[in-house]
Amino acid sequence: MGSLIRDRAASTAEMLAAFGDEALLAAALAFEAALARAQAAEGVIAAGHARLIAESCAESFDIATLAEQAAHAGTLAIPLVAELRARVGRRDPEAAAAVHRGATSQDLADTALMLQAKAGLALLLRDAGRVEVALASLARAHAATPMLARTLLQPAAAMTFGLKAAQWRAGVTAAMARLRREGEGALALQLGGAAGTLAGLEGRGEAVSRRMADALGLRSPAAPWHARREGVAGLGAALAILTGAIAKIARDVSQLARAEVAEAFEPRVEGRGGSSSMAHKRNPTGCQVALSAALRTPHLAATLVATLADEHERGLGGWQAQAPVLADLFALTHGAAAAMADVVEGLEVDVSAMARNLDAAGVSADAGQAEELALRLLEEPTE
Amino acid sequence: MGSLIRDRAASTAEMLAAFGDEALLAAALAFEAALARAQAAEGVIAAGHARLIAESCAESFDIATLAEQAAHAGTLAIPLVAELRARVGRRDPEAAAAVHRGATSQDLADTALMLQAKAGLALLLRDAGRVEVALASLARAHAATPMLARTLLQPAAAMTFGLKAAQWRAGVTAAMARLRREGEGALALQLGGAAGTLAGLEGRGEAVSRRMADALGLRSPAAPWHARREGVAGLGAALAILTGAIAKIARDVSQLARAEVAEAFEPRVEGRGGSSSMAHKRNPTGCQVALSAALRTPHLAATLVATLADEHERGLGGWQAQAPVLADLFALTHGAAAAMADVVEGLEVDVSAMARNLDAAGVSADAGQAEELALRLLEEPTE
Amino acid sequence: MGSLIRDRAASTAEMLAAFGDEALLAAALAFEAALARAQAAEGVIAAGHARLIAESCAESFDIATLAEQAAHAGTLAIPLVAELRARVGRRDPEAAAAVHRGATSQDLADTALMLQAKAGLALLLRDAGRVEVALASLARAHAATPMLARTLLQPAAAMTFGLKAAQWRAGVTAAMARLRREGEGALALQLGGAAGTLAGLEGRGEAVSRRMADALGLRSPAAPWHARREGVAGLGAALAILTGAIAKIARDVSQLARAEVAEAFEPRVEGRGGSSSMAHKRNPTGCQVALSAALRTPHLAATLVATLADEHERGLGGWQAQAPVLADLFALTHGAAAAMADVVEGLEVDVSAMARNLDAAGVSADAGQAEELALRLLEEPTE
Amino acid sequence: MGSLIRDRAASTAEMLAAFGDEALLAAALAFEAALARAQAAEGVIAAGHARLIAESCAESFDIATLAEQAAHAGTLAIPLVAELRARVGRRDPEAAAAVHRGATSQDLADTALMLQAKAGLALLLRDAGRVEVALASLARAHAATPMLARTLLQPAAAMTFGLKAAQWRAGVTAAMARLRREGEGALALQLGGAAGTLAGLEGRGEAVSRRMADALGLRSPAAPWHARREGVAGLGAALAILTGAIAKIARDVSQLARAEVAEAFEPRVEGRGGSSSMAHKRNPTGCQVALSAALRTPHLAATLVATLADEHERGLGGWQAQAPVLADLFALTHGAAAAMADVVEGLEVDVSAMARNLDAAGVSADAGQAEELALRLLEEPTE
Repeated sequence: MGSLIRDRAASTAEMLAAFGDEALLAAALAFEAALARAQAAEGVIAAGHARLIAESCAESFDIATLAEQAAHAGTLAIPLVAELRARVGRRDPEAAAAVHRGATSQDLADTALMLQAKAGLALLLRDAGRVEVALASLARAHAATPMLARTLLQPAAAMTFGLKAAQWRAGVTAAMARLRREGEGALALQLGGAAGTLAGLEGRGEAVSRRMADALGLRSPAAPWHARREGVAGLGAALAILTGAIAKIARDVSQLARAEVAEAFEPRVEGRGGSSSMAHKRNPTGCQVALSAALRTPHLAATLVATLADEHERGLGGWQAQAPVLADLFALTHGAAAAMADVVEGLEVDVSAMARNLDAAGVSADAGQAEELALRLLEEPTE
Repeated sequence: MGSLIRDRAASTAEMLAAFGDEALLAAALAFEAALARAQAAEGVIAAGHARLIAESCAESFDIATLAEQAAHAGTLAIPLVAELRARVGRRDPEAAAAVHRGATSQDLADTALMLQAKAGLALLLRDAGRVEVALASLARAHAATPMLARTLLQPAAAMTFGLKAAQWRAGVTAAMARLRREGEGALALQLGGAAGTLAGLEGRGEAVSRRMADALGLRSPAAPWHARREGVAGLGAALAILTGAIAKIARDVSQLARAEVAEAFEPRVEGRGGSSSMAHKRNPTGCQVALSAALRTPHLAATLVATLADEHERGLGGWQAQAPVLADLFALTHGAAAAMADVVEGLEVDVSAMARNLDAAGVSADAGQAEELALRLLEEPTE
Repeated sequence: MGSLIRDRAASTAEMLAAFGDEALLAAALAFEAALARAQAAEGVIAAGHARLIAESCAESFDIATLAEQAAHAGTLAIPLVAELRARVGRRDPEAAAAVHRGATSQDLADTALMLQAKAGLALLLRDAGRVEVALASLARAHAATPMLARTLLQPAAAMTFGLKAAQWRAGVTAAMARLRREGEGALALQLGGAAGTLAGLEGRGEAVSRRMADALGLRSPAAPWHARREGVAGLGAALAILTGAIAKIARDVSQLARAEVAEAFEPRVEGRGGSSSMAHKRNPTGCQVALSAALRTPHLAATLVATLADEHERGLGGWQAQAPVLADLFALTHGAAAAMADVVEGLEVDVSAMARNLDAAGVSADAGQAEELALRLLEEPTE
Repeated sequence: MGSLIRDRAASTAEMLAAFGDEALLAAALAFEAALARAQAAEGVIAAGHARLIAESCAESFDIATLAEQAAHAGTLAIPLVAELRARVGRRDPEAAAAVHRGATSQDLADTALMLQAKAGLALLLRDAGRVEVALASLARAHAATPMLARTLLQPAAAMTFGLKAAQWRAGVTAAMARLRREGEGALALQLGGAAGTLAGLEGRGEAVSRRMADALGLRSPAAPWHARREGVAGLGAALAILTGAIAKIARDVSQLARAEVAEAFEPRVEGRGGSSSMAHKRNPTGCQVALSAALRTPHLAATLVATLADEHERGLGGWQAQAPVLADLFALTHGAAAAMADVVEGLEVDVSAMARNLDAAGVSADAGQAEELALRLLEEPTE
């Protein structure tokens, strides 16, 4: 928390922005504007009121002040809605009553979180996709390149580097498929009102929800999900698993890059991977980012699951813990994906070192169906 | 580990058996028999040898001895295959060489684990299904029964008990859908041989795999997955999330059953829920089982994710930790599901207490679209 | 990561500052200044060079630039030392060579982290101490106040509120004692150089270390601990356990504050605990902060333990993950402590409601030795 | 759960027995016998009744039956006390009323758990002590043996193998010190009765507690701790951290044993570390046990912390989850300690390979104060 230096060591500027305060505030205000417009369209509030509300939502708000007020009030919605209501009320006192109508704090918080998650998912799939593409290319190029397979850290028998790359890719592909699927389930509008019954919307709650979901680009759920949060937990698990699939590549690359093995290396990048005390070093910095992320994400995913048994219609402690933890999961997973995309796109492969090590190991040189398996894995991208 | 008293407090006799030693041994021997038969069908080994091997696999083996030998050797496959080879060899020395051909220890371990998981999944879906059905029935019966919604543990506004039950069910339904999906992905045969290349099978590895998968009722994967284990992690996450969805019900029921609230109760069962010091007590014992499970399963699921960045073609430590942890996840999730199936099937609902508490709370009596939402959730079972 | 609004919902402005960028940079520069001064005192570098270095360490540096450079280089030390060396070099080219002499990036990172942890520990013990004092006062005042004990969420028998408060306090006291103890072990200087051998310090490494530790107010360890990090893990566990002990109070208070129970309440604070949709609500917002923290901290503590098996003299991924996670642990634990200090200092206790509920429960009114136990617990503060 | 084959792969027969059913039953009966004797000594019950009870506690009970009954009742105490009472009652109906007097189910469960933990702690300290001793010997023998230090998996500079071993040992020593300390705090008698007030003991509760604690060899706490369980969490954290300190050795040894490095090896043991498919392999099986344990224990320790915020005087779900998880922590930590004791006692060190690799790395051959640091670490065993 609260350190740009530490955050940037673990994540990307893009993802930090996607879950940053400006994006959060923009998402919260998008919720309020969409709520007003949808209610106007359904005749719940006046169209003029909705317009005024939407205009006020487009104004700027002071984040530091809101952060302090939200910490005091216990939720961002209270000071934000109060300020919004005051601004609208200065232009039309009657319109003020239409602000946040039928909604509750958690509706704003959850929908804003899902809007941030949607933006985060796009960034993530973009860079995990770079990993996939680069690995497919490596797999094809080296489908028949012999290398030593290692099991339990000991020499095992021959395989090909293409099979290794194809296996790495298959792990990432499967993890991306899970992430897309979980995203489709989780990225839904939340609108339920005080008790999750859509009270206060004159029986138009369902229609209002559908309009809002359309406007915000989120799924329209069959019912509010404020106290039924396994979708968020599923999304978190998918993020942690994707980090794991990416970190698997980092584990192997960093081991292949050991001086005693020297079969593959992170690309040389000016000013990266050096040491403050040893000029000769070429540290696997991209791999480090991914491996650090993979040490942290399983526990964060577990936190999301641990919140599920929350009390009644809105628990005390559980759901409130989901937002910051989901944000951290996106940040770390993207840090890993972006770092390893750079690594695999520029991976230096030393085919002769592979041959030399295989030869030195004195193991079976029969690589079986390694080449065939590599190519088959490339053909079945979504196993 | 190692205590029937503690295991039975947390799980069911059925699930403990599904992941017990006899089932493990049976699965391991089924792997060896299927391997031999598939190779005979593909002409890799002689049909007579396969028959002898399959016959020896049907014999009995001593579990305590194997457990000690496996602990010493570092894997069950080594003593089991040695013993199997010895038995086959006593009948036909040439046939002994056909035992375990083309396979490695992890092939046996992983396939056996998947066979156990398949049995476990069937038990779990059966009892989680009981929860679903009972909740649908409660939701329908009480779609319009008014009760107090509680948010942040404080009185909020009116809702209906049917909506509460429908929300519980929707959580379980979504978690079961995820579990089925993850099961379809994960429950695959593992056959790769020493280096995961299907060497030693005379180029018939793919065909042998397909035959084995068919025979064992597992999915036939595009390639061996020994070092690509996100499927197991996904399965574990789905189990933990299902436990969470079930424990959510337990959380609410145990709070409704508080003497000061008294709106719903676990069924009375002779000899259950008593106290060794207080004869008057009616403890929510089924809820306790589910809540304890939900405290443990997130961490176990995280363990599975934490193993993903294992080294090279067969890591040192990671994959070996998956089997016992996955077994524990099945055990705890089934403990929760079975306990809460009993609870919701026999749930005692006090409608008049619900009305009384709602009245006493002095909150808005407008239940909005609660009834409509309850019914809509019942119609969309797989949201 | 990266959201003041989310950070302030979970922690305090003070603790966020203690682990913020300015504090991190100040700590890193304090390390470099102390390193130079200690080497000058031991005759390793010239006194004039040390003075120049210390003066440059007192200048201001741009955090946003450093954050980007550090993310690129893989560690803060590289750009910071480069900039420091450039500044010193502009005044005296020879002095530039004395900057960071004998140290490595991790020495700077670990020592800076420990300096931040030291400041964090002081804040934490201050506010956990407020919890302790307030609870002792409640325990004394209510040592004989009868109330209903509840077990498995059901009425059990009589106890006194003083015993409840004394038990809460005993948990916090024991957790604080553990935290102090772990702090004494963990808060040590790290200085080892490239390979942890104190090479490059002309055999004066031990003396330099002692001087630096004194100057920085850290423990002087027997040897560098860069690859032996169980102290950090112990500190993290102690933080998570303290959060748990504080959250135990929050759990009970939030349950006592339920409208159906109404025995104790968070203090009324203007603008706190309200609802954006329900004006009547008095939400237990302080308890929520503590309960959310307690859902997150166990997993963060586990992350620190999971990093211990790092490779060789400086692992790839493990130790780098410790700093941000330790920072989050301090932030969340302090959020919980500060919130609950306010709660217990202003706790509203309804003695008549306690009597009424006890009476209504129809359980044994014998409170045994409750009063005596409460007083005994107060006398043994450090059990 | 429920598999001897899986349990023995991860733990020792001794530790499995220490937490097994027979030990649990013996501990539970020891609690009941000590309770009766202490009450007789304090005049709460008749001496003859206590004698009868103690005699019945010495009889044998059927574990399978008790396990089923306990699962049904929700706690072992109910069927066990019922059976004990029946047996005592057959000899003297009046004495039956003295069975379990003043105690509640959790008193039995918690005290039995602490008795098992005490036995477990002794086993653990014995084998972790073997690790310590063997490492001290290696550190002394190789204090000046040059080898390559590796940082971020890359060649760094020279160090000595003695410093490596001394650092390994210092980690284990510090973790053992924490474990002893946490054991001293946690291993306490639990006796509180229905509501934790020592009601029903005629005001002699404190004296009865002290006598019982003495008789059972446990600490006598200032007050019952049934709902104040940070001691158990602290013990769990200490176990996980010890596993981490041991796994750190396993990580390094397994990397040193790579064929490309070949500097140190697990001892050759007949029938251990082989492969079912590759006869040439020498797998680091002891290291695997420790590394697998270290992947699991952090999450188990976190589970214990996550239970702390349990409700009121005996929560629903939290404390019940502590016993099986603590048992697993002891089992896994001992598995790691025993495996690595064998490894370090028989470690094969190839000094010439160390020299060769150091030479080949082309890094600074200055080992600084490595030898001196190794010796200093040996002199300060309990840092």
